[in-house]
Amino acid sequence: MAGTKFAYVRNFELPDAVLPSTYMVVRIDGKGFHKFSKAHAFAKPNDPLALELMNEAARHVMAQLKGQVTMAFGESDEYSFLLRRDATLYSRRTSKITTHIVSLFTSAYVFSWSRFFPTTPLQYPPTFDGRLVVYPSTEIVRDYFKWRQADTHINNLYNTTFWALVLQGGQTESEATETLRGTFSRDKHEILWRFGINYDRLEAMFRKGTTLVWYRSVVEGSRTSTSSASAGTKADAIEGSRTSTSTTGSGTGTEADAIEETSSSTARQGVGQVDAQRETLEDEAAREGITPAHAAKRRAKAEKQRRKRLESAHDLELVTLHCDIIGDAFWSISAPAPAEVDEPQDEM
Amino acid sequence: MAGTKFAYVRNFELPDAVLPSTYMVVRIDGKGFHKFSKAHAFAKPNDPLALELMNEAARHVMAQLKGQVTMAFGESDEYSFLLRRDATLYSRRTSKITTHIVSLFTSAYVFSWSRFFPTTPLQYPPTFDGRLVVYPSTEIVRDYFKWRQADTHINNLYNTTFWALVLQGGQTESEATETLRGTFSRDKHEILWRFGINYDRLEAMFRKGTTLVWYRSVVEGSRTSTSSASAGTKADAIEGSRTSTSTTGSGTGTEADAIEETSSSTARQGVGQVDAQRETLEDEAAREGITPAHAAKRRAKAEKQRRKRLESAHDLELVTLHCDIIGDAFWSISAPAPAEVDEPQDEM
Amino acid sequence: MAGTKFAYVRNFELPDAVLPSTYMVVRIDGKGFHKFSKAHAFAKPNDPLALELMNEAARHVMAQLKGQVTMAFGESDEYSFLLRRDATLYSRRTSKITTHIVSLFTSAYVFSWSRFFPTTPLQYPPTFDGRLVVYPSTEIVRDYFKWRQADTHINNLYNTTFWALVLQGGQTESEATETLRGTFSRDKHEILWRFGINYDRLEAMFRKGTTLVWYRSVVEGSRTSTSSASAGTKADAIEGSRTSTSTTGSGTGTEADAIEETSSSTARQGVGQVDAQRETLEDEAAREGITPAHAAKRRAKAEKQRRKRLESAHDLELVTLHCDIIGDAFWSISAPAPAEVDEPQDEM
Amino acid sequence: MAGTKFAYVRNFELPDAVLPSTYMVVRIDGKGFHKFSKAHAFAKPNDPLALELMNEAARHVMAQLKGQVTMAFGESDEYSFLLRRDATLYSRRTSKITTHIVSLFTSAYVFSWSRFFPTTPLQYPPTFDGRLVVYPSTEIVRDYFKWRQADTHINNLYNTTFWALVLQGGQTESEATETLRGTFSRDKHEILWRFGINYDRLEAMFRKGTTLVWYRSVVEGSRTSTSSASAGTKADAIEGSRTSTSTTGSGTGTEADAIEETSSSTARQGVGQVDAQRETLEDEAAREGITPAHAAKRRAKAEKQRRKRLESAHDLELVTLHCDIIGDAFWSISAPAPAEVDEPQDEM
Repeated sequence: MAGTKFAYVRNFELPDAVLPSTYMVVRIDGKGFHKFSKAHAFAKPNDPLALELMNEAARHVMAQLKGQVTMAFGESDEYSFLLRRDATLYSRRTSKITTHIVSLFTSAYVFSWSRFFPTTPLQYPPTFDGRLVVYPSTEIVRDYFKWRQADTHINNLYNTTFWALVLQGGQTESEATETLRGTFSRDKHEILWRFGINYDRLEAMFRKGTTLVWYRSVVEGSRTSTSSASAGTKADAIEGSRTSTSTTGSGTGTEADAIEETSSSTARQGVGQVDAQRETLEDEAAREGITPAHAAKRRAKAEKQRRKRLESAHDLELVTLHCDIIGDAFWSISAPAPAEVDEPQDEM
Repeated sequence: MAGTKFAYVRNFELPDAVLPSTYMVVRIDGKGFHKFSKAHAFAKPNDPLALELMNEAARHVMAQLKGQVTMAFGESDEYSFLLRRDATLYSRRTSKITTHIVSLFTSAYVFSWSRFFPTTPLQYPPTFDGRLVVYPSTEIVRDYFKWRQADTHINNLYNTTFWALVLQGGQTESEATETLRGTFSRDKHEILWRFGINYDRLEAMFRKGTTLVWYRSVVEGSRTSTSSASAGTKADAIEGSRTSTSTTGSGTGTEADAIEETSSSTARQGVGQVDAQRETLEDEAAREGITPAHAAKRRAKAEKQRRKRLESAHDLELVTLHCDIIGDAFWSISAPAPAEVDEPQDEM
Repeated sequence: MAGTKFAYVRNFELPDAVLPSTYMVVRIDGKGFHKFSKAHAFAKPNDPLALELMNEAARHVMAQLKGQVTMAFGESDEYSFLLRRDATLYSRRTSKITTHIVSLFTSAYVFSWSRFFPTTPLQYPPTFDGRLVVYPSTEIVRDYFKWRQADTHINNLYNTTFWALVLQGGQTESEATETLRGTFSRDKHEILWRFGINYDRLEAMFRKGTTLVWYRSVVEGSRTSTSSASAGTKADAIEGSRTSTSTTGSGTGTEADAIEETSSSTARQGVGQVDAQRETLEDEAAREGITPAHAAKRRAKAEKQRRKRLESAHDLELVTLHCDIIGDAFWSISAPAPAEVDEPQDEM
Repeated sequence: MAGTKFAYVRNFELPDAVLPSTYMVVRIDGKGFHKFSKAHAFAKPNDPLALELMNEAARHVMAQLKGQVTMAFGESDEYSFLLRRDATLYSRRTSKITTHIVSLFTSAYVFSWSRFFPTTPLQYPPTFDGRLVVYPSTEIVRDYFKWRQADTHINNLYNTTFWALVLQGGQTESEATETLRGTFSRDKHEILWRFGINYDRLEAMFRKGTTLVWYRSVVEGSRTSTSSASAGTKADAIEGSRTSTSTTGSGTGTEADAIEETSSSTARQGVGQVDAQRETLEDEAAREGITPAHAAKRRAKAEKQRRKRLESAHDLELVTLHCDIIGDAFWSISAPAPAEVDEPQDEM
């Protein structure tokens, strides 16, 4: 057949699976967004609509990858997505995971543009690039997200002061750059103060970036109230992050748990699933008095159900936060008591 | 400073550069396009507008990466992009190259949707995934593209027959599947014949897919003669291409050359550039009677100009073909004589 | 210069560093040792001298890589070496680490041959191959070593029974294979019993393989008490170890600790060392009232000393064990109290 | 079973196969050979016996990997081995290939030590490390070997002059270093001249390194004469390289062919073997009137025979040369006419 003699070229496609039982972070970055933001007259130093469009695209990614992506953090024209330690998406193949997330994000960004900028036509197709970074432990993953938020703070303080000097102070961009050379954090706060800006009162989204997490709502009666509380939603969440409220707490609590080190038995099941199971199949069959083939079917079904439960989990809601994630509070607040949820926390 | 103590997390970003002096093919695939084509009522077995939208998105990729991507081939919901053997895009980093191309394609697809489907609103954001495959030689790269076109043929013949059975023959989809089981190529042609379809007369785009190449137009007076000369030569090669004409022919010729094995000296310059140059700098400086720093500057400038010339080359036009690329004709037709162009062919 | 224009070929040497903050296990295997053991008339099913030669080669590896390799486990013609989570050997380059360990082992094996087999000349150069496997967590590393010892048990029980059937039972090798087909563990024990062999009384080295760990001897007066204390605790854990005694026990304790998850702050220092330090250099300089260059020098010296202390640590002794490492006892026994040692345990 | 639940750890062993249809060069380097050569009182600047021991170890590698390794080049304490473009050794797995070659070399070095240094006991086990570099084209592979020989020249000229200054000129090592600072090639030749040394008359092995290639002896009558000519052997070969003789020519000729770009059809067979064959199996079976299973068996047998023929080829002899490999002569001299050999040259 015609295709046959050329099919050997497939042998050049080498495997690129990520090490099992490790966290994967996919970070995407806007490509040429300096030019893009100028072409679309984004407000300086921060354009709330442009940021909300980024958040919307990120929520699309998370909704499509429910059960695999547990958390995301965005600032400016970048977004980081955290995949579960035992994520099985695309059999953990680097290229597939990375390109799929970048494509989901890009597509949603362009698709949703007109909803956020109804009177500003998109001039040309915006693009993003991405990379996947592997982190071996919970602690280092946390430090990754802390690093991004620290970066948000540093950049935003600089940019806010820079544009105050330009827009309010009448300096040219070069002059502003010169004015800021060698300044420390407190110097910038002072400059802002002169322009009547209390940095700490600026939008939390600008100062803290945006954190997306899955929130496990609790059962029955309590559900509505919780939902409405966290739903008000984003408005409250943003406000809430300033003064630290319970919504935030619950949300973060859930998240803290989601990132928690999966227990040994889970790691084993998640990671070594296929292999480990194949080998004990006979034992299981013997124990249960069924054929190994039957045992295998039962298992495949159970695993499928587990995944499905994760992915369609109706009690998981996506929450948008603008809270501090550098301090330990975000990561340490305990999750809702096990009794309140229908599934072990470490399954989230 | 706040960000400092977390910055160590960057050490987990490992390098992923592709081996120098090798061809890179990035193939992208529609994700869930069976569902997507149903949701948007694409015509069966081929929707010309949907294919043209794919082509448009691919042309956007090539236009943005002029000087790096020399050829592309598309069929159905997939597209393959060939990068020059000495491409320097993103320092040949796998993730960056792959995600950037997938993002460019996705973005252009969504951005251009309404131009191709003005009365069919996009229901949800379509996505693609991608992978990068490395090929060490010209010949194997050619076989790669031949493989894709052979695949186009096999799939299209099957699909065309399948839908003739369903749409014209009144069979259910299962019945059609059953009818086709175990049939050979000639059987399918016969079935089509019964429905009054001469397969070989169908749109070349359906049967041959779409090939995009850069066509080097020649200057002024010489232009016509060269075009007609090489076009005449290629009449047969591109018989399948109904819409395209003489330009097409020249394009193929140019392309064959573009994929041609880069000469040793080029490989050396392209690949080992940075390193090789650093070491001979002193020699060059001595020879020219200038300082090494001066020699270095001169070189950087020359390299920049070379790139710029490649990328902005006004004599390169993107041509869309639907011709046979399995036979040798497409690949072997000689390019315009070097004298007629302002740059060596192997620089393209 | 002659070499210059060819130097670009170095660009083809791509980086292959292992992800930071992960455990690395290098496992080496004898190549064609079935033939090799026949050629040198090794005793069946186990040749104690051949195993001791393997152990000797492994001890050479560990001695040469003190401070990097913390544990090793060997059985038959294979040996596994565990590198510290924050090992910096060869900047964590896969090829360098793997080939160096394989070369050290091979060299020591040939070099020491005549000491173990003074009357059996080496017929030809024996060889080994190796691979490096990355493990992200302490728990999985432990399971790796448990897996190897479980394998030792399974293979040794089979081989012991097989050779009893052949050497004592007079069966041919094919008959013995047939006899053992489908048998369970208890069946094999019974067969051995018939030949007067109590499997559990066989050499621990045959049944449990060999475990090498670094033992931290404690200072002066406190030494005895600690040793006896922790040794008493471990009597059961190492029941299998016939020859080794109390020292053995303490060693295990130390080892459990050595593999212990390094604390977050250590991970950060170990992993992100270079980078993190570079960035806070100015802060440190300011704090200490010295120049950044001075601060940098001070640090480099401190790091060098830290390494040196690790590598030359006179209070670390290499201990050879043949104990159970599948049960938790080996891994959970607490190490000597921090006060008793001159360095934090997690630095080992 | 005990081993079962830990077996999941095998999933952490990720694949590391090299891209098909590319050359692989494994370069090994002595580890700490400065110290090693002092400890064993190697002659300065070159110890002929130490170099011959290196050559002997390299010949062992080539003999063990006949049919896979086609050429080697050594100088000082390093050696480079070239694997066929379509080498199938260890399924092209990086770690396995690299460690196996390093182990073969190390083992042979220690094993053969006493033959080369009968009165100098080996003080301790010497070690080597290694890395595998992939080269996509014949031309770049040649440049690789040219690079190594250029390096040999540069280092040897420097070292010879350095030690002349020290041993004959009575300078201290620091003084010699100072004397040589900033000197060019001609300056060094002059210094040597003063000590009565005509650099170009020194041992070819010192100046040109050692090149190992497979030499295909021709059939019947001519065989003996050729063999004896090249066999005289090394003495002649070395001498020959000085004045350039036919022996050298034939040897190099054969080699030039061995490295020659494998033809397209070969590449396809070599590389895509498994896959391509699986797909055309039915076609072949149909054509030959046999079952696919039968066809498969036939093929496996044919492939096995092909390999065996390569590996055991009695008409291939290993030749040791010390000739120039920077010039084109070594690479371009035509091989024995096809008629004289029983196998296509590109199969070598």
